[in-house]
Amino acid sequence: MMRPKRSSDTVHVFNLMVLCFIALFFSSVLCQGKIRRFKWEVKYEFKSPDCFEKLVITINGKFPGPTIKAQQGDTIVVELKNSFMTENVAVHWHGIRQIGTPWFDGVEGVTQCPILPGEVFIYQFVVDRPGTYMYHSHYGMQRESGLIGMIQVSPPATEPEPFTYDYDRNFLLTDWYHKSMSEKATGLASIPFKWVGEPQSLMIQGRGRFNCSNNLTTPPSLVSGVCNVSNADCSRFILTVIPGKTYRLRIGSLTALSALSFQIEGHNLTVVEADGHYVEPFTVKNLFVYSGETYSVLLKADQNPRRNYWITSSIVSRPATTPPATAVLNYYPNHPRRRPPTSESSNIVPEWNDTRSRLAQSLAIKARRGFIHALPENSDKVIVLLNTQNEVNGYRRWSVNNVSYHHPKTPYLIALKQNLTNAFDWRFTAPENYDSRNYDIFAKPLNANATTSDGIYRLRFNSTVDVILQNANTMNANNSETHPWHLHGHDFWVLGYGEGKFNESEDPKRYNRVDPIKKNTVAVQPFGWTALRFRADNPGVWSFHCHIESHFFMGMGIVFESGIDKVSSLPSSIMGCGQTKR
Amino acid sequence: MMRPKRSSDTVHVFNLMVLCFIALFFSSVLCQGKIRRFKWEVKYEFKSPDCFEKLVITINGKFPGPTIKAQQGDTIVVELKNSFMTENVAVHWHGIRQIGTPWFDGVEGVTQCPILPGEVFIYQFVVDRPGTYMYHSHYGMQRESGLIGMIQVSPPATEPEPFTYDYDRNFLLTDWYHKSMSEKATGLASIPFKWVGEPQSLMIQGRGRFNCSNNLTTPPSLVSGVCNVSNADCSRFILTVIPGKTYRLRIGSLTALSALSFQIEGHNLTVVEADGHYVEPFTVKNLFVYSGETYSVLLKADQNPRRNYWITSSIVSRPATTPPATAVLNYYPNHPRRRPPTSESSNIVPEWNDTRSRLAQSLAIKARRGFIHALPENSDKVIVLLNTQNEVNGYRRWSVNNVSYHHPKTPYLIALKQNLTNAFDWRFTAPENYDSRNYDIFAKPLNANATTSDGIYRLRFNSTVDVILQNANTMNANNSETHPWHLHGHDFWVLGYGEGKFNESEDPKRYNRVDPIKKNTVAVQPFGWTALRFRADNPGVWSFHCHIESHFFMGMGIVFESGIDKVSSLPSSIMGCGQTKR
Repeated sequence: MMRPKRSSDTVHVFNLMVLCFIALFFSSVLCQGKIRRFKWEVKYEFKSPDCFEKLVITINGKFPGPTIKAQQGDTIVVELKNSFMTENVAVHWHGIRQIGTPWFDGVEGVTQCPILPGEVFIYQFVVDRPGTYMYHSHYGMQRESGLIGMIQVSPPATEPEPFTYDYDRNFLLTDWYHKSMSEKATGLASIPFKWVGEPQSLMIQGRGRFNCSNNLTTPPSLVSGVCNVSNADCSRFILTVIPGKTYRLRIGSLTALSALSFQIEGHNLTVVEADGHYVEPFTVKNLFVYSGETYSVLLKADQNPRRNYWITSSIVSRPATTPPATAVLNYYPNHPRRRPPTSESSNIVPEWNDTRSRLAQSLAIKARRGFIHALPENSDKVIVLLNTQNEVNGYRRWSVNNVSYHHPKTPYLIALKQNLTNAFDWRFTAPENYDSRNYDIFAKPLNANATTSDGIYRLRFNSTVDVILQNANTMNANNSETHPWHLHGHDFWVLGYGEGKFNESEDPKRYNRVDPIKKNTVAVQPFGWTALRFRADNPGVWSFHCHIESHFFMGMGIVFESGIDKVSSLPSSIMGCGQTKR
Repeated sequence: MMRPKRSSDTVHVFNLMVLCFIALFFSSVLCQGKIRRFKWEVKYEFKSPDCFEKLVITINGKFPGPTIKAQQGDTIVVELKNSFMTENVAVHWHGIRQIGTPWFDGVEGVTQCPILPGEVFIYQFVVDRPGTYMYHSHYGMQRESGLIGMIQVSPPATEPEPFTYDYDRNFLLTDWYHKSMSEKATGLASIPFKWVGEPQSLMIQGRGRFNCSNNLTTPPSLVSGVCNVSNADCSRFILTVIPGKTYRLRIGSLTALSALSFQIEGHNLTVVEADGHYVEPFTVKNLFVYSGETYSVLLKADQNPRRNYWITSSIVSRPATTPPATAVLNYYPNHPRRRPPTSESSNIVPEWNDTRSRLAQSLAIKARRGFIHALPENSDKVIVLLNTQNEVNGYRRWSVNNVSYHHPKTPYLIALKQNLTNAFDWRFTAPENYDSRNYDIFAKPLNANATTSDGIYRLRFNSTVDVILQNANTMNANNSETHPWHLHGHDFWVLGYGEGKFNESEDPKRYNRVDPIKKNTVAVQPFGWTALRFRADNPGVWSFHCHIESHFFMGMGIVFESGIDKVSSLPSSIMGCGQTKR
């Protein structure tokens, strides 16, 4: 009796397997797109990106790292080898939601253990939306050392983009320090507190020009060392254009500190994409870009073609003395090295403290008609997050509702999924508001002392959440800073911006409910507020933080969890730290 | 039938447990000595140990780290918190044999996974012999950043030391670089190769004096920066002595590169201990100390007490321009800051290239009568290790018998114990000799290409092994360097030293079989050889390497295994890397 039955079972199983393989094959070819494999070696090398030689993180010898180009639905596989000597690493895929793969979000302490020296870690995720994204280290302040790059995702052929262009070019914008990441981080974590200061240089596509003979405004240790203006590493970036053609410029900022204004002498820029979402086109003379944001702008080569033009990136929102980064817009067939006839500072930029014009540009960014994601009418919960500068046990910190963030040794995702109840403070009730009646956001905090916690915000799966980012005065009188907040795993609708203290009864009436843009990064302006809404529909554990590297390092962030029970089993590659050793 | 039996069993088990606890209690109190607990926080801080400010690794805010003082048989428990931002750590207890605890030897990649930032690791081991030992980081080139300190172990009251003294003082000697460990390591691992160069300073007990205005011989980046000769961090170390009293000076070297000569103006030093073994006393004007060695010398305060004297540490064996480190021998009640009447360079030191006088001192170091460990008459195996400078795939390396060392991602101890057969190259046949007939040790290698391997030397448990360290010409003509070799987990007998190529039939006849000293670190001189013998009687996996930080980093080391089957089960705290994630 038994044998024939088994045999028929075997045939049945075999048929099922064949069907399964066929299905897998077609789904991967037709639905899930191509698999794109990258092999990266990450290490330190001596480079002179702004003419000053220092250690820079390279990927396969390159800084910035190679651009990942893919099509919507493709699977990206990055086999990353850590070739540092004693330092770990983790890489975040900024703007990629990691649907179904929350363990590959690359946030050390939140979604994975760090990757140890000598080890190879394989990131594997689907790029599920077209647009412009970035990647960077998400570990300590390592991003500042140079582990950065861009991701371009094109739409499927059946869904063309709602604008046309002839060529596609990247403009990754950064600021740059001569001190090492360790020196900066040690200063921030010291008593007395040592601020990192303004950057020595700005860079366009990883190229800046430090004035090697500048020893008036810069401390000697940051000036001296090998500094060579003719080093090829710091030759100006050149964008060569053919007269009459249209260029899509993908502009992303991964600055450590600086808010930027980007402009091209004599040319308008038409904004068409923000953080992977189509924007109802509008034209600007200069584009404000905050750290963590990406934009696509269209540039028409429609000016006098017999000369070249300056492209500049300059600091706004802080009274920095750092000179602008310069690149050259080169009209073919002029010589690429032909200097524009004007001075480098001929681009007109708003004043650094002209908050209103920055706010106006933010308000102008709306979802493109035909590509509007309907806003859920109501939210299930409103979380108001007050951003303040504080002290915790004598250390200078940043806080959210008076709690300064630090993460536990065992990453949250693993602790929550495996129910490791002593891995962090599970009982912590994350504050969903601050004492808004009595707190004067225009004054220095009366009591600057904050607390610290590794507790998190747990959101009901699929609930809709409003977040109000409320800015305030820092610990210095009459001072408030710009903070670009970045949400992992989700895009949010930008409901509105305002000046002063958010009014819970009045301000929501002015929310944009018609065509709000979706983004993953948004700025809150000095003494202002920003309101956003998202649906907690991506199972996992997600970081939400100020994208200024030193601010996050100093505690300016929180963590959301939702749908942890829907997360499938975790790969062992993310283990190895805290309670996850064999 | 069953119940009464169980009950009697229970009583029996209970009695056994009581007995067991009593035995444990007494063994820990009477036999194993005290338990000495230390809580350490390891981090980077800005310090100016040679007047030049840079990041220095501190333990509980101190550089060098605190001295561990214990008695023979005590158990040391160090609860070490890694407070680096992105960097791991591992600490080796230099000279402690770790009998029964091979997993706490602290060698990253050999005996443990590195300790991650934020994590606490507990080292626990018995100090089973009296003497002078050290501790330091054993990870990448991290030792050079300052994670160093001393261990003093006193004998039990029933076994007094064979010499007397009134006071006991430490002299930890180091050299010091202004570049960061990462900058140096990156240069060494680059094509073209960038050598670390000679140190900027020498230090006595963590204090040196860099000439802040010295910008002739030093590259600008190493000079500039904050440099302040009146910084308290770099005030000269002062040894105050009472006339007529005798001082035991425990001298240890943890230099990165330099071989040293230590001397006290106008005073003799009587050598009484080397690497934890009593030495038949002999008197020197200057003591040669190689990196990884410790000595105790007796100093009698028997000179003119109305003045102070210079104590200096200076470089030998390399033509370095680094000035000597100076400290002051202060005769009480002279003012400690009273400058000795002579010039700082008044200590007479042999010429840097006077190899013969160094060799003569090494030969003078013999086991003290009454404390001679009988030498096993014969060895079961002779391993000849040729030390050469080479290239591997265009990278500059050091090799042993033409194999340049690198270790696997999963530490050897774990891989071997858990039989992880793909963790490293188990099939590698470690070369136990070189082509000694045809190799000219006085010439540059004809073919500088070497290979690299993570294979190891497996020794029969309890077998007796002779090792001949054979030096040779580097890749530069007429050049050979001094290499201090350090063996983990064992002390070896020093059989002999010689110049030129070791002669297998003749040289063993001149071995010291009467009173050879036991040590854990021994130098092989330029163009010379050193012979040693040890019994592979400590179950575990043990590193044997050149103690020059950059040489080991460049591959100058091997690993011995013996008795792995006798190693008891490994603690989970050493896991987390390679194949040891959950």
